[in-house]
Amino acid sequence: MAKEKKLVESITSRDEDFAQWYTDVVREAKLCDYSGVKGCLNYLPNGYAIWENIQADLDKRFKETGVENVYLPVLIPESLLQKEKDHIEGFAPEVAWVTHGGLEPLQERFCVRPTSETLFCDHWSKTVQSYRDLPKVWNQWCSVLRWEKTTRPFLRSREFLWQEGHTIHATYEEAEQRTVMMLNVYKDFVQNDLAIPLVTGRKTESEKFAGAQDTYTIEALMHDGKALQSGTSHFFGKTFADAFDIKYSDKNNELHSVYETSWGVSTRIIGAIIMVHGDDSGLVLPPRIAPVQTRVIPIAQHKEGVLEKANELMNSLKAAGYRVKIDDTDKSPGWKFSEQEMLGIPTRIEIGPKDIENNQVVVVRRDTREKIVVSMDEIETKLSEILEKIQKDMFDRAKTFLDSHITSAVTMDEMNEKFNENKGFIKAMWCGEETCEEEIKAATGGATSRCIPEEQECLSDKCIFCGKPAKHMVYWGKAY
Amino acid sequence: MAKEKKLVESITSRDEDFAQWYTDVVREAKLCDYSGVKGCLNYLPNGYAIWENIQADLDKRFKETGVENVYLPVLIPESLLQKEKDHIEGFAPEVAWVTHGGLEPLQERFCVRPTSETLFCDHWSKTVQSYRDLPKVWNQWCSVLRWEKTTRPFLRSREFLWQEGHTIHATYEEAEQRTVMMLNVYKDFVQNDLAIPLVTGRKTESEKFAGAQDTYTIEALMHDGKALQSGTSHFFGKTFADAFDIKYSDKNNELHSVYETSWGVSTRIIGAIIMVHGDDSGLVLPPRIAPVQTRVIPIAQHKEGVLEKANELMNSLKAAGYRVKIDDTDKSPGWKFSEQEMLGIPTRIEIGPKDIENNQVVVVRRDTREKIVVSMDEIETKLSEILEKIQKDMFDRAKTFLDSHITSAVTMDEMNEKFNENKGFIKAMWCGEETCEEEIKAATGGATSRCIPEEQECLSDKCIFCGKPAKHMVYWGKAY
Repeated sequence: MAKEKKLVESITSRDEDFAQWYTDVVREAKLCDYSGVKGCLNYLPNGYAIWENIQADLDKRFKETGVENVYLPVLIPESLLQKEKDHIEGFAPEVAWVTHGGLEPLQERFCVRPTSETLFCDHWSKTVQSYRDLPKVWNQWCSVLRWEKTTRPFLRSREFLWQEGHTIHATYEEAEQRTVMMLNVYKDFVQNDLAIPLVTGRKTESEKFAGAQDTYTIEALMHDGKALQSGTSHFFGKTFADAFDIKYSDKNNELHSVYETSWGVSTRIIGAIIMVHGDDSGLVLPPRIAPVQTRVIPIAQHKEGVLEKANELMNSLKAAGYRVKIDDTDKSPGWKFSEQEMLGIPTRIEIGPKDIENNQVVVVRRDTREKIVVSMDEIETKLSEILEKIQKDMFDRAKTFLDSHITSAVTMDEMNEKFNENKGFIKAMWCGEETCEEEIKAATGGATSRCIPEEQECLSDKCIFCGKPAKHMVYWGKAY
Repeated sequence: MAKEKKLVESITSRDEDFAQWYTDVVREAKLCDYSGVKGCLNYLPNGYAIWENIQADLDKRFKETGVENVYLPVLIPESLLQKEKDHIEGFAPEVAWVTHGGLEPLQERFCVRPTSETLFCDHWSKTVQSYRDLPKVWNQWCSVLRWEKTTRPFLRSREFLWQEGHTIHATYEEAEQRTVMMLNVYKDFVQNDLAIPLVTGRKTESEKFAGAQDTYTIEALMHDGKALQSGTSHFFGKTFADAFDIKYSDKNNELHSVYETSWGVSTRIIGAIIMVHGDDSGLVLPPRIAPVQTRVIPIAQHKEGVLEKANELMNSLKAAGYRVKIDDTDKSPGWKFSEQEMLGIPTRIEIGPKDIENNQVVVVRRDTREKIVVSMDEIETKLSEILEKIQKDMFDRAKTFLDSHITSAVTMDEMNEKFNENKGFIKAMWCGEETCEEEIKAATGGATSRCIPEEQECLSDKCIFCGKPAKHMVYWGKAY
């Protein structure tokens, strides 16, 4: 079993050096690697297949709420990007500029899109006329480019994949409802399908998206106690509509500006899956999103009938709708087990001569390593039960971890202690002033406001930092 | 019916001015429009939904042949693009260059990908080591940018959407098989699902892809008699492998270069759907690819029970798996009919008080305008038969048109006459010399070699232009 050892030994222990463990898992599971373009990733088959499943699942949820998909250009003229003041201020330092087309210099520079609010608004300003044209509930799946200085696979790279939804509405209420609706779509998807429990709420002024009136966020807790912003939904009010002059005439022929929203989830979420569920043997994928749900591994496959029976099993499971593969390579079973574990495939099915004799197979759970003997006649139904159980257990374990890492503080001493020992989310009261937010970050050595949850608790009447009257209870944490 | 007239009158007659008709249909069916970035399109919901169906269908076919999806960066360093001589010569004049990242000038320019052979090869040169790593059969769905001077919606734009498959293999035979396999996947898809009959074969030397040893093509005939190259599959041999040093060690530990292929279909194919099937009332979409297969249109919807029954019908059709929508707006039925026809929705179902009384509906075919009375009890099964019939009839009509526009010529006089009167494809013998190809184009005023079909006929022993011994029978035509 020398080989088997080698594969596991190629990754650092998670509790020893979390950052290195993360890098090792991404590399050994062949999810992505760095391309020849500094800070840009190659999304390799194992990683991209996870993204494809996320896309399919989210896209279905979007369409059930009336979303239509579109595709707008990868380039944005500089003049367009500049139309909304806060927006250009937020993005100018981190965009890449196209200055030459073919052999000629361009008259106006284009940036490679960092986000597409300006393109959607430009289109709508030219095409929306009447209340009959509203609402527009559009989305695009694409990549965006942000010229980051430091990068990490999935978490922060110069180019990343995402969806960006953009909508316009006749009324304030409808736009606000859409903002919250999409937050809830994300929340439901991440909790149910990715088995990742969340803390959700509004961002503070300083953490909002450039140009937004309100930014809602879903925040997940990684195994190292750090928070990962995993999806956002923005309410713009009339900010962009006024900057781009998007007006419609109502039934009485009166002109009004539209209300706008945008919302996005990116490949960053793959980082969350790794850091919430992964262990010292590698990736652990939630069954609902796993590209392969089970891998059939023949034991003593050189013996007569084993490969045949294993293939038969794979085909019947495939026909029953499972995402299933077989490993019939000439590697040793031990090596095959290690590889299946590294890839995070939720179950493997071991089938050898003795199993065939007894008309059974052995299902091994990736998350708990529990071995379950199942009769060959029942495997088609049992496997689905086992996968559902894994999905539920993964969420429950992550929820227990999250709950044990949410604490509260009413003094800065308390906050400092909890932030530096327990990590996780710390609930504390805040006066609403940006200066206090900055001071808290400085005093704790990195605690930022993650969100203002909808369900408020009154831990104290006073801001934890300045002692003035508290306005909100805020979740604080160290963020990726 | 003033409004109804207006919608149809907004498009030019197809036989009067084909180019204008095309532009009008694209605009009125709201498939795409020009963005604020010169030559770049906004793919709007009606157009993008067609692309989504094309993607889903092709992607399924790809995966059945073992293709894995990936995503590689949107930017390519200049030094990488230059590694293969023919490739850079072909693409340098038409790429857009990124020269600044954030606020700083870059040390090396990046181009926005015009195609990604160089990125795939760069990755493989670093990761492929042994025969066990082969083959790689990868594909990505993305957009590419080519700085075209003149543009037309779908047919030629600076940015377009496509899939690009890239594969490497241990042997010449395996790579060649893959090249032809993908051509056949395209052929089957376009003929069966888009109802577009094809002429297929190899490209001549001068029409090949930059860097390829062989380019295979599928060519469709538009209603104006012009040809549209609709998909290509390239065999590179070792050209790129040698330029990028992609080597693997075989079982005996000997080093060999890999053999490579690439293949692509783009949003251009949407142009083919429009120009093969469309008519004076607008778009006509093949049922298998139509985003909406039937639109329920209530007649006298203000009368009691009509809207209710129409919605009931829609819901039962949706439950039965049809892609169905209802038009319950306050527009007149005539206007609704015009709009459904403009959008190319393959059928509409009219349902009014009398129909309800008689427990029936009226299905109207978009392609022939035939009205079919169907009992309400049978609509769920009948509709699928009608859609299949439409699909078949659309292909048959296009095939009849194609067949009547394939002629042959053995003298240049004959070729000139047929090329300028009948248009379409002209079969003629060719010596294989590039100069003759150029002379034929000049003499006819635009006939280019479309492909050398696999099934050769001997029309004459001599090249139609120079009279020297003929090597191939070639399909000639005027191309988009």
